[in-house]
Amino acid sequence: MIREDILDIKPYVPGKPIEEVKRELGIDDVIKLASNENPLGPSKKAVEAMKEAASGVHIYPHGDCYVLKEALSDRLGVSEEELMFGNGSDDILKFIGEAFVNTGEEVIVAEPSFSEYEFATNIMGGDVVKVPLKDYTHNLSAMLETITDQTKLVFICNPNNPTGTTVTKQEVDSFMAEVPDDVVVVFDEAYKEYVTSDDYPETINYLTDYDNVIILRTFSKIYGLAGLRIGYAISNKELIGYLNRVRPPFEVNSMAQTAAYAALQDQDHLNKSKEINTEGKKYLYQEFERLGLEYVPTETNFILVDVKKDASEVFADMQKQGVIIRNAQAFGYETMIRVTIGTDEQNQRLINTLEQVLA
Amino acid sequence: MIREDILDIKPYVPGKPIEEVKRELGIDDVIKLASNENPLGPSKKAVEAMKEAASGVHIYPHGDCYVLKEALSDRLGVSEEELMFGNGSDDILKFIGEAFVNTGEEVIVAEPSFSEYEFATNIMGGDVVKVPLKDYTHNLSAMLETITDQTKLVFICNPNNPTGTTVTKQEVDSFMAEVPDDVVVVFDEAYKEYVTSDDYPETINYLTDYDNVIILRTFSKIYGLAGLRIGYAISNKELIGYLNRVRPPFEVNSMAQTAAYAALQDQDHLNKSKEINTEGKKYLYQEFERLGLEYVPTETNFILVDVKKDASEVFADMQKQGVIIRNAQAFGYETMIRVTIGTDEQNQRLINTLEQVLA
Repeated sequence: MIREDILDIKPYVPGKPIEEVKRELGIDDVIKLASNENPLGPSKKAVEAMKEAASGVHIYPHGDCYVLKEALSDRLGVSEEELMFGNGSDDILKFIGEAFVNTGEEVIVAEPSFSEYEFATNIMGGDVVKVPLKDYTHNLSAMLETITDQTKLVFICNPNNPTGTTVTKQEVDSFMAEVPDDVVVVFDEAYKEYVTSDDYPETINYLTDYDNVIILRTFSKIYGLAGLRIGYAISNKELIGYLNRVRPPFEVNSMAQTAAYAALQDQDHLNKSKEINTEGKKYLYQEFERLGLEYVPTETNFILVDVKKDASEVFADMQKQGVIIRNAQAFGYETMIRVTIGTDEQNQRLINTLEQVLA
Repeated sequence: MIREDILDIKPYVPGKPIEEVKRELGIDDVIKLASNENPLGPSKKAVEAMKEAASGVHIYPHGDCYVLKEALSDRLGVSEEELMFGNGSDDILKFIGEAFVNTGEEVIVAEPSFSEYEFATNIMGGDVVKVPLKDYTHNLSAMLETITDQTKLVFICNPNNPTGTTVTKQEVDSFMAEVPDDVVVVFDEAYKEYVTSDDYPETINYLTDYDNVIILRTFSKIYGLAGLRIGYAISNKELIGYLNRVRPPFEVNSMAQTAAYAALQDQDHLNKSKEINTEGKKYLYQEFERLGLEYVPTETNFILVDVKKDASEVFADMQKQGVIIRNAQAFGYETMIRVTIGTDEQNQRLINTLEQVLA
């Protein structure tokens, strides 16, 4: 009965929930630095707004998130017709597959990169073409060369998950100048707000000259609303219209809309979140160097580190001590782990535990 | 660039949000009896649980809703592997299309019924075959006769939206005995908890004898959590496994999981919600009879009424007086409206306004 196309889909393996690890190991003091969540939590303004909204959840949400859309449109300087929201930005990945990919058409992604591009492609029976990273970074010229008549989409995860690297404005400029105009280029910028690099592209500018660009962002990362599931797409009116055709009518819950609206007003929380991340990054770099461990310099709130041992063992040993991280073998890196940058206290515990485990 | 399959998709037209009507008409005292929301609101236990959970929304939700799944599995007497949750049950409709429907395959639905079955089919390039209702009720024997070698799915909305009617256990027994075992039968039971009829089928029982049954239910209606988006499917382990292949990893937000778990514990709220609906139904029947209006007896929290005038005019006139209802022309009934059963006060206002408008 099942469609053959979906037989190959591998289930996503998320970081383990804290409660599950607590239960399994019978320990109480567990920290999770595995899912790139904001260690400061959500904005207090968002928390207040949620509490006020709680008694009204019997009412259907606004299908098009119109209050939030108005606010975000002002903030970004794009029109409301150039925006759409989804149940997390991975929801919009699925819409992109549904809107554009016919059976047998090609979708180009970097390897390794966020696994959900493959998922969205596979559901529609598309063929994923993987282009290896170069120095842990998207190889845009190789991705360009991979484009054929069958290519429908190119996904550029910038910064890239799981490596934390970015492609530069110059690289993207050259790429966009060459890419055929019937290939849709999707920039996934889930970690954009953490970027400190000067040559990171402001992709909204490409919307002026190119009609084949979709930008994805999220409230799950620096905004601290991962639990609520809300992300958004920026594109031109035409492509947003296509995506809206495959969007179910009430996709974004009302709590998420309320909290995201409040979070948008809380610039302090955003600044503080970025600050603590920059400090944590500095501390972790230092400590990795002290321990003689190579890492990939990051533009995000996570770091890929080479522990020079079987990563699954390091993962298991750290978890036994109550520190949950990501085993990067899932991404093809046999001796690497991916750690989220946490609070000072969490970062210290991470380093102490790692030092013990590696000793 | 866009897939041809989705060019025909018509956007869903939801009931107007109260704030939008207030803004447009410049009036403040507006009630909405258009979207079949629970007029009592959510359970107080759910509201408390949400308030407590608000500060933790920076953490990703459980991908498989395991705490809630455990509780619901106990409640329903099915195993956890026979359950899955979605971002509203319409989310699961989409999963069903993605898991089963290839381009050109047929999906049988009643006409009129819930529009999202057509949506889920169209996205996958399937062909919707519509079988007219008979006496406002699913014509199961006609639907059975419509099945061909190309048929993949049959949707049975029971009770049916927008008519409020049910098919009986006897009718479904006969249908199930005849339906080929490679055709998946989906029972959408969004309004099940409102049913008072004695011969309404307990579809979970069909799971024992048939391997092609999926049952959909929701927390949006009697549980009063429409804003949070959470529904679920009950089926056998194999079909649930197929649906899980096309489910994005974090589909149901954590607030919805928390609130639904709390709502499940609040049997009083459920009972009260059903009671007020039964009373409201009785009152509205009486008043419709007094006004000489025919209506379709309902097993839900809404009633389809023949106003014997162009329904779009009645809709517009009522809205001007601050009462939002559904114009049933969208469902093909030129002189009918669909009204949600509200609180006593709301029902009285509905009747008074309707009486004025029709005078």
